[in-house]
Amino acid sequence: MSQPLSGIIPPLVTPLRDRDTLDCAGLERLIEHLIGGGVSGLFILGTTGEGPSLSYRLRRELIDRTCKQTAGRVPVLVGITDTSFTESVNLAKHSADAGATHVVTAPPYYFPAAPPEMQEYIQDLVAEMPLPMFLYNMPGLTKVSFEIDLVRRALDMPGVCGVKDSSCDMIYFHRLIEVAKQRADWSVLVGPEELTAEAVLLGGHGGINGGANLNPKLYVEMYQAAAAQDLKRTRELHAQVMQLAGSIYTVGRHKSAIIKGIKCGLSLLGICEDHMAEPFQRFREPERAMIRERLVKLGLIS
Amino acid sequence: MSQPLSGIIPPLVTPLRDRDTLDCAGLERLIEHLIGGGVSGLFILGTTGEGPSLSYRLRRELIDRTCKQTAGRVPVLVGITDTSFTESVNLAKHSADAGATHVVTAPPYYFPAAPPEMQEYIQDLVAEMPLPMFLYNMPGLTKVSFEIDLVRRALDMPGVCGVKDSSCDMIYFHRLIEVAKQRADWSVLVGPEELTAEAVLLGGHGGINGGANLNPKLYVEMYQAAAAQDLKRTRELHAQVMQLAGSIYTVGRHKSAIIKGIKCGLSLLGICEDHMAEPFQRFREPERAMIRERLVKLGLIS
Amino acid sequence: MSQPLSGIIPPLVTPLRDRDTLDCAGLERLIEHLIGGGVSGLFILGTTGEGPSLSYRLRRELIDRTCKQTAGRVPVLVGITDTSFTESVNLAKHSADAGATHVVTAPPYYFPAAPPEMQEYIQDLVAEMPLPMFLYNMPGLTKVSFEIDLVRRALDMPGVCGVKDSSCDMIYFHRLIEVAKQRADWSVLVGPEELTAEAVLLGGHGGINGGANLNPKLYVEMYQAAAAQDLKRTRELHAQVMQLAGSIYTVGRHKSAIIKGIKCGLSLLGICEDHMAEPFQRFREPERAMIRERLVKLGLIS
Amino acid sequence: MSQPLSGIIPPLVTPLRDRDTLDCAGLERLIEHLIGGGVSGLFILGTTGEGPSLSYRLRRELIDRTCKQTAGRVPVLVGITDTSFTESVNLAKHSADAGATHVVTAPPYYFPAAPPEMQEYIQDLVAEMPLPMFLYNMPGLTKVSFEIDLVRRALDMPGVCGVKDSSCDMIYFHRLIEVAKQRADWSVLVGPEELTAEAVLLGGHGGINGGANLNPKLYVEMYQAAAAQDLKRTRELHAQVMQLAGSIYTVGRHKSAIIKGIKCGLSLLGICEDHMAEPFQRFREPERAMIRERLVKLGLIS
Repeated sequence: MSQPLSGIIPPLVTPLRDRDTLDCAGLERLIEHLIGGGVSGLFILGTTGEGPSLSYRLRRELIDRTCKQTAGRVPVLVGITDTSFTESVNLAKHSADAGATHVVTAPPYYFPAAPPEMQEYIQDLVAEMPLPMFLYNMPGLTKVSFEIDLVRRALDMPGVCGVKDSSCDMIYFHRLIEVAKQRADWSVLVGPEELTAEAVLLGGHGGINGGANLNPKLYVEMYQAAAAQDLKRTRELHAQVMQLAGSIYTVGRHKSAIIKGIKCGLSLLGICEDHMAEPFQRFREPERAMIRERLVKLGLIS
Repeated sequence: MSQPLSGIIPPLVTPLRDRDTLDCAGLERLIEHLIGGGVSGLFILGTTGEGPSLSYRLRRELIDRTCKQTAGRVPVLVGITDTSFTESVNLAKHSADAGATHVVTAPPYYFPAAPPEMQEYIQDLVAEMPLPMFLYNMPGLTKVSFEIDLVRRALDMPGVCGVKDSSCDMIYFHRLIEVAKQRADWSVLVGPEELTAEAVLLGGHGGINGGANLNPKLYVEMYQAAAAQDLKRTRELHAQVMQLAGSIYTVGRHKSAIIKGIKCGLSLLGICEDHMAEPFQRFREPERAMIRERLVKLGLIS
Repeated sequence: MSQPLSGIIPPLVTPLRDRDTLDCAGLERLIEHLIGGGVSGLFILGTTGEGPSLSYRLRRELIDRTCKQTAGRVPVLVGITDTSFTESVNLAKHSADAGATHVVTAPPYYFPAAPPEMQEYIQDLVAEMPLPMFLYNMPGLTKVSFEIDLVRRALDMPGVCGVKDSSCDMIYFHRLIEVAKQRADWSVLVGPEELTAEAVLLGGHGGINGGANLNPKLYVEMYQAAAAQDLKRTRELHAQVMQLAGSIYTVGRHKSAIIKGIKCGLSLLGICEDHMAEPFQRFREPERAMIRERLVKLGLIS
Repeated sequence: MSQPLSGIIPPLVTPLRDRDTLDCAGLERLIEHLIGGGVSGLFILGTTGEGPSLSYRLRRELIDRTCKQTAGRVPVLVGITDTSFTESVNLAKHSADAGATHVVTAPPYYFPAAPPEMQEYIQDLVAEMPLPMFLYNMPGLTKVSFEIDLVRRALDMPGVCGVKDSSCDMIYFHRLIEVAKQRADWSVLVGPEELTAEAVLLGGHGGINGGANLNPKLYVEMYQAAAAQDLKRTRELHAQVMQLAGSIYTVGRHKSAIIKGIKCGLSLLGICEDHMAEPFQRFREPERAMIRERLVKLGLIS
């Protein structure tokens, strides 16, 4: 039985040159930036990666190139969430063939499945998975949660290896940790970076935090301080994470502001292009100027 | 400039033999059942058709077979709603090549686009469409509405030909009708069958009603009575529609009960199989027995 | 067994001189304006009347003065909705003593009661009522609905005399009508004025429509046309109602825009003052100027 | 300038003999139980105290008796949240006269005020307050939040002394802490007990936790361990709090299960009666037996 994944596993943005063209050089730079920053793994095709907005062709290309560039240095997790069971299975098989190490699935996000329907869905899906699978709880975008009862039943599924929780509900997260204690190989990871400090202080395994795209070292250090139970240092680094999030994610007025801010920042850092897939568009110049100014304040560019 | 579509245009269930296999004979029987019932068009790959749950391969096969079987007798509308712009365009092109007459798109349903983002999305999408496009308002499943302002701006887009509204919000619907009066070729259609009578009495063009899969004649007659302003007859037929919906859609406890009920009913009528795509499963025997009993009471089977 | 209430029963705004002072002369003028306009009853202390925002002292004064001024010419309905059962009973007793004819209650709006809790609540409440009671369905503000099952059980409560539905959900409304057919004395009334035409065309008894404060004759005529099944005239008057609502309720940007618009309009018509109880404030001059302009366009002032 | 309140301040249940009769002896025992358990203050008429469900007469009696019994040993906070501004002011004045030390107000919970309306509401309300006022953020029941911008503006209001946050949103809570650093006398307290450990570890001042009614010592010790940055001990006690919440709050199926569980538990502990105000009813015997069993497992009764 393997060790649980732990640490910071950034949800990579997908560098794009246009709607359906990967920014391949940008992707390579991003991967090196993150591995160089000490991250414990890479998660592609999640929410921050605009997974559902990309064509299947581009998703497969992204999987291939990420696995090739990573070359086994850290685990590669692939988001296979889809409204079509068949397409999820197709992506999982492609991921395994390409050399990914884990798949990650949120509930299908068009029809909201009721708890017994979801239970059956996960059972059926995990049976088809060629790789260990994370449950990805993201009710804000998928409408439904993985209920604690479902997670408890998943303890009996060898193919499930943990949960990523992006619900922002720390009561739920604490219950997850209690449940997961019964599977020594399970990993419980938190999504929003503002919550990683407390998640790790109170027993979680790490964070899948979007801001780590911009400054992986900060997030890795915060994780390490929390894992070492160094509360004073954790609070200092948590304050820095709050500052990054509070300044970079509040430029746009819509919910898309977080991903737009990260992509715009990466472009300003010279790492990759900031084109976005519909229904979003990258920031125009006024917002870009604000992001630039804030990156300067954060000491990320001069 | 063409006439607006009007009348009953059923949103076809997708007859399945298993998760990824079309029930081809069932599809042919269903199409003949509906055209024989007097419907004004066929709408495939909508919500009732479990569009987002199907693989792309199967969606293309369904488009091809439906167009071939219909053979131009009535318009064929194809749902191309997708979280990926590129995949929507791919489906639209395939639809045009296969001989469909219209495409139908709801908002992308993973990321909720804010109004200005949605405006840009629709402008960009319609520019790529090879067929006239309906806007499909379905906030219960896509999280966001097409705001009236956006619909008003769409008046200037020759590629948009109307709106299908499944919001259940008749105030919104009445505003749509006001707006649509400025485009003689626009059609405003209502989703929930319980609302078709009043929609047509007060100026709408018809209904895209799931129950018409089971009993197309009833819905067509109700539409005709309402269009002829025969209020007495409209009320009688509306009461029958309420009875069908109230008995067939209330067997299951979850939101999936409507589609499950229709598919189960069609199977009992001998029209097609009732297999469903994940995350749903067809009714088991106890629910099936209840549907049978209710179809008997409705006079649809003996 | 009495006849069901039918027709237009406006939900009166509460004319205020300041936070806790009634505009008594304005109230008298408003009552005469409405009775003169042909309304079938008066409903005070509803949502439009800012009932929950008023002190109990002022609510009692309003009940007393309204009953005195009305002097039995039309029924007076009093909203007794409260989060405290005891205060609801107190208000109902005061209403009966003052000469009101009906009470109206929505679910308690702080704690959302689950269906069995609500069932018990209504049973207990109706047992204490000295007057016939309407159920007031208003889930947008009270969080929970009166489920159809509860309404069906209320058929056995002689103290319940009907339902006012402000859910904007016409499917629910049609189910209410079906249920209510079993009680010849029950009245099913609709809240939003945009829906009164179809509600009456398809079997409802009338409307409790805020806009009738401004132009009672228009709403009464629309009701009469619909009740007489004169579809052509109903459509004309419905279009006028849509125009009034679309112009007067869209000046402010918040949900309070409807009540603010009506009160401001009444002030411009010279009927009563437009002070509002917290958490709302009356429109300032720019919005007031817009309302004035729109009232001119509607032909309500010159 | 005073010190900020800190520590555990339980939101007292309201001991009732029936709908409108206080269990006076129970209230005295409850107060002694809590002060004996080391709490830093008492909060009456909050959500756990069923404040909005009680008559005004009973609320005043509760304020009087609580202040008298407490006799200045700890601060007494009184919930004055109301849909009527005037009634909130009345309750605040009564509280000051009776000897309470603070008032606590959530947004008015019938009409959802938009941010600028809320800003004006709080400014107007605080101007009338005879005691320092806490903002009580409880969007689950009041529909709207106190936005961070509003809290920032409240820094300039000397009459505001802090925030109680029951949103369950720890990102919001961390932002509150950042804002509150600018007012040395402000206290930021968290509602849900499952979140008190992390709230205090990362800079919060304490918790207003319902479970402290049952076992005040546990919550006080958890607070003290967290305030002392003893992470090991905090985690042990947090696990015990999770266990209490997970066992006592999950007996009923509805949202009322938390308050019902606490009241039932207090009755089994011999502290006070468990009658509830409508729309809730106390647990019947089967649920009571489950609560008894769970209290035994928790070691609270033998």
